[in-house]
Amino acid sequence: MTAAFAAVDWGTSSFRIWLCDEAGSVTAERRSGEGMLSAEPDKFSAILEQHLAEMGAPNNLPVMICGMAGARQGWIEAPYVAVPAALADILAGAVRVPDAARKILIVPGLAQRRADAPDVMRGEETQLAGISSLLASGSRLVCMPGTHSKWVETKDGTVAGFRTWLTGEFFSILSKQSILRHSIGTAPAVIDARNAAFKDACEQALNGHGDIGGALFGIRAAGLLHGLGPEAAAARLSGLLIGSEIASAGHRFDNSGGRIVLVASGAIGDLYAEAFRLAGRAIEQVDAEGAVRAGLVEAARHHGMTKKVQS
Amino acid sequence: MTAAFAAVDWGTSSFRIWLCDEAGSVTAERRSGEGMLSAEPDKFSAILEQHLAEMGAPNNLPVMICGMAGARQGWIEAPYVAVPAALADILAGAVRVPDAARKILIVPGLAQRRADAPDVMRGEETQLAGISSLLASGSRLVCMPGTHSKWVETKDGTVAGFRTWLTGEFFSILSKQSILRHSIGTAPAVIDARNAAFKDACEQALNGHGDIGGALFGIRAAGLLHGLGPEAAAARLSGLLIGSEIASAGHRFDNSGGRIVLVASGAIGDLYAEAFRLAGRAIEQVDAEGAVRAGLVEAARHHGMTKKVQS
Repeated sequence: MTAAFAAVDWGTSSFRIWLCDEAGSVTAERRSGEGMLSAEPDKFSAILEQHLAEMGAPNNLPVMICGMAGARQGWIEAPYVAVPAALADILAGAVRVPDAARKILIVPGLAQRRADAPDVMRGEETQLAGISSLLASGSRLVCMPGTHSKWVETKDGTVAGFRTWLTGEFFSILSKQSILRHSIGTAPAVIDARNAAFKDACEQALNGHGDIGGALFGIRAAGLLHGLGPEAAAARLSGLLIGSEIASAGHRFDNSGGRIVLVASGAIGDLYAEAFRLAGRAIEQVDAEGAVRAGLVEAARHHGMTKKVQS
Repeated sequence: MTAAFAAVDWGTSSFRIWLCDEAGSVTAERRSGEGMLSAEPDKFSAILEQHLAEMGAPNNLPVMICGMAGARQGWIEAPYVAVPAALADILAGAVRVPDAARKILIVPGLAQRRADAPDVMRGEETQLAGISSLLASGSRLVCMPGTHSKWVETKDGTVAGFRTWLTGEFFSILSKQSILRHSIGTAPAVIDARNAAFKDACEQALNGHGDIGGALFGIRAAGLLHGLGPEAAAARLSGLLIGSEIASAGHRFDNSGGRIVLVASGAIGDLYAEAFRLAGRAIEQVDAEGAVRAGLVEAARHHGMTKKVQS
């Protein structure tokens, strides 16, 4: 056993755990769907211990957690840190789970308490900490796509402010619950960024300064009138929503045309990268999973967990 | 029995029937939730005949229907009439239900086949026909709020073009299915147009040229950080969505500041009237139910149904 600590990303719908050595390198990993939504309030400890046991982790291995486990409805509340907040200070504010046999810490989320733009995040702050070297000096604009996309302004390693777009959730509920489900229902789950319908719709949203209100129902109408198929309909919806998000964020954040840091993996990363290309914006893409793991390692280091554990 | 014909508005989720005399005045009415969604394909005739029988209508009373009953998935398809289309021609295109003992006609919907802005409507064309005197000369812009809000440009009694916003459906799925349900879930169903949260949010959307993408999640965050209650949260969502629709429609339709015809009843009419006031737009409001009934009477007259029936 060479692990020094365990790193856990415990979100709304997923649980990911990595065992890491003293250098922060991963020695083992597991994933499950035991997110906060499916975990009973008193089952957090049992779920975590079960995974640790199956990975052969010693009883005294410390654990660093980020994500919704720290919400009020989660395991132990790790109260929001108010922005502006230095990335190092956020990690320093990790809260210890009381009455646990081993040392378990949860990284706090961030709150923007401005009355005119209230916002919160949990989990993305750890991704930001994981790319702290990129954000250490100067002003940066970071785009973190997902169910709830976060756009973050940083200055010299400090989170200055942020804002949430419901893009991923919009795609999900519009394609499954709205009138558009009749047009999209049977589409494949993954959209190809090279799909012409995605690109066309994305450009339409960008050219319209993000105003897609009068275009969404057109997906249904195009199915009825012009035979638009489910795959193109899904690509069209995705293009409209992502293009609208990028245009809308462009109104909110003045980045003077600087390179945007895109924190995203897989297919969604490809879609946003293509959308930024269509918007004429240069990006610097980093892997989202790599970022959260690096942030957890950074947090573990901060709390003295990166020492060899005697098992 | 003084009825000359029956008028039916058969929508997605509701069924309304009126018996009318030779002059088009209502002598009896019934309503039910037997909309197209809950009616089995082979049950349309039985549902209609049951209502007619309970109202004491004679077997040979003719019936004029509008709405989703004329959709492909409805009772009998009344194929879309393409715009531009004169209101009188739309009514003239009513399709007869074959194999029915009595004369039953269904008013066709409208299709906008432009590849860059495909759109369809069913039911609203009959409301437009019901206010044909208002639309007879000059150019008018008509706003018809609902689950799917329709904005229609007319010129000299002809429907020139139209566009749909999903405002009502957005409100429903965001307040019931999205993360915002945690903030809005227990709110009263009806929002008061005098609610300050409605007005503030509406102005915010209007001032932001309809861009509300970065503001919706703020409803959830304001609940977590500032104690925003369910009633204010619902009012805020409604204000953002309606303000966004009005701003977005303002980009699409050049009405040169002319008076907008608002076809709406009840609480939703009050909300839109207030939103137009905040937007500095003059309106001329007409009752939506009165409009659809008047349109059905006009259609019945067109097809020779406004003659006394011998029972």
